[in-house]
Amino acid sequence: MVRLTARFLMAVRNQDTANFMRDGKKIVGVALNYMDVVKARNVPVPKEPLVFLKPTSSYLREGHPIILPKVFSKVAYEVELGVVIGTRCKNVSKQDAMKHVSGYCLALDLTAQCNLTAARAAGQPWTLGKGFDTSTPVSKFIPFDDVEDPHTLPLWLKVNGEVKQKGCTADLIFKVPDIISYVSKFMTLEPNDLILTGTPNGSDAFKAGDEIECGMGELATLKFQVCGE
Amino acid sequence: MVRLTARFLMAVRNQDTANFMRDGKKIVGVALNYMDVVKARNVPVPKEPLVFLKPTSSYLREGHPIILPKVFSKVAYEVELGVVIGTRCKNVSKQDAMKHVSGYCLALDLTAQCNLTAARAAGQPWTLGKGFDTSTPVSKFIPFDDVEDPHTLPLWLKVNGEVKQKGCTADLIFKVPDIISYVSKFMTLEPNDLILTGTPNGSDAFKAGDEIECGMGELATLKFQVCGE
Ligand SMILES: [Mg+2]
Ligand SMILES: [Mg+2]
Ligand SMILES: [Mg+2]
Repeated sequence: MVRLTARFLMAVRNQDTANFMRDGKKIVGVALNYMDVVKARNVPVPKEPLVFLKPTSSYLREGHPIILPKVFSKVAYEVELGVVIGTRCKNVSKQDAMKHVSGYCLALDLTAQCNLTAARAAGQPWTLGKGFDTSTPVSKFIPFDDVEDPHTLPLWLKVNGEVKQKGCTADLIFKVPDIISYVSKFMTLEPNDLILTGTPNGSDAFKAGDEIECGMGELATLKFQVCGE
Repeated sequence: MVRLTARFLMAVRNQDTANFMRDGKKIVGVALNYMDVVKARNVPVPKEPLVFLKPTSSYLREGHPIILPKVFSKVAYEVELGVVIGTRCKNVSKQDAMKHVSGYCLALDLTAQCNLTAARAAGQPWTLGKGFDTSTPVSKFIPFDDVEDPHTLPLWLKVNGEVKQKGCTADLIFKVPDIISYVSKFMTLEPNDLILTGTPNGSDAFKAGDEIECGMGELATLKFQVCGE
């Protein structure tokens, strides 16, 4: 009886956030969160998650093209595990963090490196380089129960059929509960919020005319055409 | 008849975004946007608006206290004119920008300077120092028609009864249409989005126990108690 109720509540919770792309209010990204990237770039391991925001106006559904803004000269792909928040939380412990996850998605965190490099050098916000329209392509909602362990998921990305990224969420520096707990010290996480957990090594520039394809284990694949603005 | 229809449409538009705090999905801030600040700090006049994001989970209504996160040692007040978007726009010209404004609000853009100073020095995002819960206190919606000219509004802020900021939106470097046009080159602005236009000179730290009061011409005043977390 207790099991049935828990299952029922989980189903309701999943249903509520299945439209995270339509109903969500924030996208929280984490930068430099894969050990293979830290090693490849020979930079120090971050002591705390490097947190940034993307607006929900940057969401893109499969079937629509990625549009490269004409103001940018270099935009890079980043394939990532997305985590969908199911219930409101603030100051949540790592132990309790996963109770607030309703599901996942496969996502791209497209990044205007031209803009970001200049912004970082000048101590300016990352907003424009991370927040442009179509910069957050996402798969459909993957219910919590469909993922046995979010830290054993293979991630891959191809450009025009050639493998460019190949990693595994096992390599995450800050795990899903670490990120949720940390972010919730500062800001309330709300149902339908999305967390982008970071990208494995291999992120690089792409251009108009390219076809980007990516996948996460057996759970999701995505394919997008790239257009100029 | 045409006039009546226009007035009716304006009323509908205003009604739709009167709950911008509840329904909005993004808050776009502009930093270093007052000439008096540029002069006081002796820094170059920005060539383009310095754009950052705050999450809508940072909104605070009058009647609730500002809560200083325990992780921060120095949080500053910034009194600002807020601009509410009424209709969707992308790549809008300066000439057409004001057509997409449904109204205004008085706002505070509370900023954890301790965090922001460190983030800027390290080339990191501004998210945590700008995005914490209660960091965006706002007044109620002020309909477009109630403001004859958004660029002649006096702004003031007092801490414990003492005047700390006293400025005027005439001093804005990037005016409201400049900001809307610029931001819309990168990201779609949607109904209920809020733009924080920047703060006049005098922004400084405050602490738990303080009372912060601010006003914008005859249009709005706000008063908040400050608590520790
Ligand atoms: Mg930012
Ligand atoms: Mg990323
Ligand atoms: Mg400000």
